Amino acid sequence: MTHLLKQSVKLALIQLACTADKAHNLSHARIKVLEATRAGAKIVVLPECFNSPYGTKYFSQYAEQLLPSPPTEEQSPTFHALSQLAKEGECYLVGGSIPEREGSGQDEKLYNTNLTFGPGGELLASHRKMHLFDIDIPGKIQFKESEVLTAGKRITMVELPEYGKIAIAICYDVRFPELAMIAARKGAFLLLYPGAFNLTTGELHWELQARARAMDNQVYVGLCSPARDMEAEYNAWGHSIVVGPNAEVLGALDEKEGVLVKELIKGRIEEVRKGIPIYTQRRFDVYPDVSEGL
Amino acid sequence: MTHLLKQSVKLALIQLACTADKAHNLSHARIKVLEATRAGAKIVVLPECFNSPYGTKYFSQYAEQLLPSPPTEEQSPTFHALSQLAKEGECYLVGGSIPEREGSGQDEKLYNTNLTFGPGGELLASHRKMHLFDIDIPGKIQFKESEVLTAGKRITMVELPEYGKIAIAICYDVRFPELAMIAARKGAFLLLYPGAFNLTTGELHWELQARARAMDNQVYVGLCSPARDMEAEYNAWGHSIVVGPNAEVLGALDEKEGVLVKELIKGRIEEVRKGIPIYTQRRFDVYPDVSEGL
Repeated sequence: MTHLLKQSVKLALIQLACTADKAHNLSHARIKVLEATRAGAKIVVLPECFNSPYGTKYFSQYAEQLLPSPPTEEQSPTFHALSQLAKEGECYLVGGSIPEREGSGQDEKLYNTNLTFGPGGELLASHRKMHLFDIDIPGKIQFKESEVLTAGKRITMVELPEYGKIAIAICYDVRFPELAMIAARKGAFLLLYPGAFNLTTGELHWELQARARAMDNQVYVGLCSPARDMEAEYNAWGHSIVVGPNAEVLGALDEKEGVLVKELIKGRIEEVRKGIPIYTQRRFDVYPDVSEGL
Repeated sequence: MTHLLKQSVKLALIQLACTADKAHNLSHARIKVLEATRAGAKIVVLPECFNSPYGTKYFSQYAEQLLPSPPTEEQSPTFHALSQLAKEGECYLVGGSIPEREGSGQDEKLYNTNLTFGPGGELLASHRKMHLFDIDIPGKIQFKESEVLTAGKRITMVELPEYGKIAIAICYDVRFPELAMIAARKGAFLLLYPGAFNLTTGELHWELQARARAMDNQVYVGLCSPARDMEAEYNAWGHSIVVGPNAEVLGALDEKEGVLVKELIKGRIEEVRKGIPIYTQRRFDVYPDVSEGL
């Protein structure tokens, strides 16, 4: 029997306290990532916008140029810091996200972009947030990423040779179940979402999103938030969470900085799918399979 | 502005104590449905297999012939009892489900079928459970509906002229998000699932299913279970639940018999969708819309 997860592996979510100082954020992320790898983590995740404040007015200021790849040290210090850190920690490093700048002048575009590196320091994947965070809940939270960001247009999966396939998307992407359905049906054992929900949407839907994606797709799910900072303009929810393929919460943090390390178990996905075999019971004779042809 | 729900309406879920005595179940259901309509409910839901024990060995014994429609009193006493009851209560009656027999001898087929009647006593829809409940969680629960039942092959939506569109599916159907996605995208304001989860799957996933379907589709969701009977072979979870379009639990019962009446509010769905506008943000340029062409 083949297993989606080829061998058990420790996953770490770094709920980083992020500041307005990029250099500090990078060196602080390094300390926390190495803390996680010393604890045995082989897949380590940083939060969305981990090296800048989160806000439309900050994206341009903090943006780095990633293409053509690899960028120079000057074009993207974060690219190089993360590459080096993946190598130092001998881990797969899912580098949260950073604001990315492409082109210049009239043609300039900004994205909210994830970079994922392998243990050799090589770039494995880059995901541009596909669903921009435009919400307006009166009296609670307004935010409009699309005022300054451009949306990506690709679903991102990465093959980790020793473990299997993972899928990476960013924050608001989690609200669109198609991404999770497609990734899981194409063989991902783990869906990772660096994300920064806020005090309104976090309380409403953060854990529910994680558990719903896990339940409907019978895969592991990890949501990795920045730590909450009530001095910042945008207050992240925190509560980074790892959920198992039966929608069980394997671990979650509170709102403060922290590192969550959980072991994902080889065979567990297959055990869950054998018990509740929705994978063989879907009625693609009645409704289409969203993953078909992709 | 048009509203999916044209006017606020009270929904009632009847968490019925079901027995092996069909005539008793029907008369008992009548008492409870009229209790709900006296409380103002205009949409009333009965649970899955509300007039028989739930179990593969009982389906044939309790099955009724529904086609050609309308059946005679002898072919389907439940059809007539529900039609009469919808009229008496002046309500839309979503009649849980009953085992249905079609054909005879070698060609006999059994289904797990919902009948939904309008306030004039007219049959509005019939849904045959589309995803059969075949599960095997070692040491916990084994069940294989497909040993005796045939699966339906249609998604069921009903137009209620004064209120709008609702969708009806049965129990295990809830685990397949496509049904909810399709129904909601085609304009349903409410997804109803008569269902009998058990003590294993109920604890794991009952509330999560209801909340996930509501959150991902921003519609009202109702799951209606039989009351728990620890003397029966199959122990239903109970905990009938109504969830609002922001995934908020509007009300839920415990495991005992009860009637849950909740008002669904005109405009609430639109308010939620305005706040978190996933309806306009989906990326059908990247992944397909499962509801397209259906």
